[in-house]
Amino acid sequence: DNTFNPIDHPHRRYNPLTGQYILVSPHRAKRPWQGADETPEVADDTQYDSGCFLCPTNTRVSGDANPDYKGTYVFNNDHAALTVDTPDAPESDNPLFRCESARGLSRVICFSPDHSKTLPELPLPAIRGVIDTWNEQIEELGQDYVWVQAFENKGSTMGCSQPHPHGQIWANSFLPNEISRKDENLRKYYQENGTNLLVDYAKAEMEDGSRTVVETEHWIAVVPYWAAWPFETMLMPKTHIRRMNDLTDEQRDDLALAIKKLTSRYDNLFKCSFPYSMGWHYAPFFKEGDTSTDHWQLHALFYPPLLRSATVRKFMVGYEMLAESQRDLTAEQAADKLRALSDIHFREQ
Amino acid sequence: DNTFNPIDHPHRRYNPLTGQYILVSPHRAKRPWQGADETPEVADDTQYDSGCFLCPTNTRVSGDANPDYKGTYVFNNDHAALTVDTPDAPESDNPLFRCESARGLSRVICFSPDHSKTLPELPLPAIRGVIDTWNEQIEELGQDYVWVQAFENKGSTMGCSQPHPHGQIWANSFLPNEISRKDENLRKYYQENGTNLLVDYAKAEMEDGSRTVVETEHWIAVVPYWAAWPFETMLMPKTHIRRMNDLTDEQRDDLALAIKKLTSRYDNLFKCSFPYSMGWHYAPFFKEGDTSTDHWQLHALFYPPLLRSATVRKFMVGYEMLAESQRDLTAEQAADKLRALSDIHFREQ
Ligand SMILES: O=P(O)(O)O[C@H]1O[C@H](CO)[C@@H](O)[C@H](O)[C@H]1O
Ligand SMILES: O=P(O)(O)O[C@H]1O[C@H](CO)[C@@H](O)[C@H](O)[C@H]1O
Repeated sequence: DNTFNPIDHPHRRYNPLTGQYILVSPHRAKRPWQGADETPEVADDTQYDSGCFLCPTNTRVSGDANPDYKGTYVFNNDHAALTVDTPDAPESDNPLFRCESARGLSRVICFSPDHSKTLPELPLPAIRGVIDTWNEQIEELGQDYVWVQAFENKGSTMGCSQPHPHGQIWANSFLPNEISRKDENLRKYYQENGTNLLVDYAKAEMEDGSRTVVETEHWIAVVPYWAAWPFETMLMPKTHIRRMNDLTDEQRDDLALAIKKLTSRYDNLFKCSFPYSMGWHYAPFFKEGDTSTDHWQLHALFYPPLLRSATVRKFMVGYEMLAESQRDLTAEQAADKLRALSDIHFREQ
Repeated sequence: DNTFNPIDHPHRRYNPLTGQYILVSPHRAKRPWQGADETPEVADDTQYDSGCFLCPTNTRVSGDANPDYKGTYVFNNDHAALTVDTPDAPESDNPLFRCESARGLSRVICFSPDHSKTLPELPLPAIRGVIDTWNEQIEELGQDYVWVQAFENKGSTMGCSQPHPHGQIWANSFLPNEISRKDENLRKYYQENGTNLLVDYAKAEMEDGSRTVVETEHWIAVVPYWAAWPFETMLMPKTHIRRMNDLTDEQRDDLALAIKKLTSRYDNLFKCSFPYSMGWHYAPFFKEGDTSTDHWQLHALFYPPLLRSATVRKFMVGYEMLAESQRDLTAEQAADKLRALSDIHFREQ
């Protein structure tokens, strides 16, 4: 039988948010592995670590002491990638050497005073506290900056240099590549179809179900049809929400629940603290030109690298860097695996 | 003094090949590191390893035995990401669920029978042999496929699962993302300026010199003005060459020399076997539509992840995945460091 079947046959799927393709090679998951093993993150029950820069009351490299905080705690990153007062760069007349100066700042958000608990293990009110802090930071910085990227690098595999549960906020005087590309694609779809791409997409996924990992009253998390990372997910509200600030109190509580369920399934997959980078995309704070944002929809992206176990990851190297992202299992297979697990964290069961 | 200075002030540089920006934060290189350490690649002097799938005379997973090869050796990858006879996928009528079937094949190129020697440590005639093999493979597969990606993943940090020095060739029935984007940008520049972007760029870099790492009679390797990875380089011929096949015998010998010098500088930087992904871009084998390729130029790209030492790498995570690539030293600073080293490999000194 030579009929196309996405579980057996290599194919490319189109990501309408980036305009890029993903090469899917589902038959390839069986190859043997002789490459690098990641060190699994060992669960550490120490709630307070005197050597940690982020624990309450400790002193940071800058010499500043953290307060004895009880919920979230935000401070300016002592090693920010951006400065607030960068002078303007001179314009270049050669199109091959184009440069522009960049302004911004970065902050660190400690998610909780507890050194040992990542998002899935925090109680719902604490996760809700993180959501409120994201929102406050984004709204405050959005007054001065067109883009505010809230994100979390979790686990040393994802370049996280501090085990204490925390995220970051980088505010930018410019629209970064990924946001600018997404803005174009969302706007084009809105102009062509008169509807919002991600609202249409959430609706289609709710009807289909095969890529759904978590569904709560107001939220749905799916392995996107065009996922690049093995267990990548996208978390979306079910209705049109431009920014976190537009969420009702009830929708925020429900978001805490959706995050807890999703990240618990992640940890349960390989019985480890599942590494990832996650972050929020939403309507930019346009200051000039066309400031319309009807085409935008709030959503979170989770990019986890693990592929087969707590120690075997997917590498986006070689072919991927030079040609195209490639994955070894379909989005539906990944969603199946995540859906088959409990949504109660294995350490809380 | 508040005059813009690229060594002190955050800025964005534009990559005219991808149309994307890179955020440069040169003041950030000083931050402390508490994150993951890579395992340095230990130099292993074993020339033949009986447990290696790639050493001459050994048997692979497939059951096939390798011949007692003396130069390069090419075989079909037993776990290819693509198949030659994939059936066509049905067309989707929903723009959010677009998929197309993908045909192709992958091959492995063993660079040398010697298990212990990576490119910089091979004698020039052996490197020339690798160049000729790349060219033969690309020309052969280009008859059937529009794109043939030749690349090398070196080191376990770059997902390499086999220490024996080797590269890969993936042939594609489609133009992958990176090539298709580059094709558009190169074509646009050619239409607007009547000249070849990369020929113009090589000329400008030869005149400037501040980003040059290696220069031979026919080749130049620079840290591109828009480099994303800390010690990224681009290796280009000095004249207009569409594909490897257009190179003269002398230009090929000189390419072997340029590769040996460049990769030796890499190994010398942190006195280790320097991990990277590298690969070739050149005029695609267009079969239909506009098949002109005057806008294309042959070049190799090296993407090495190490940042500060043999064990501390740059992570492209969080902000980078969600917003924009970011680097901690300027292209000129990286080129300075590579240029200050000997171009004789430290194990051959
Ligand atoms: O083909 P290999 O060496 O097994 O695999 C390696 O290179 C491939 C092509 O860049 C990647 O898709 C894999 O993630 C990587 O581990
Ligand atoms: O800011 P950190 O945690 O020191 O650094 C980490 O996150 C940053 C933002 O994603 C990245 O640029 C760094 O490569 C990574 O190691």
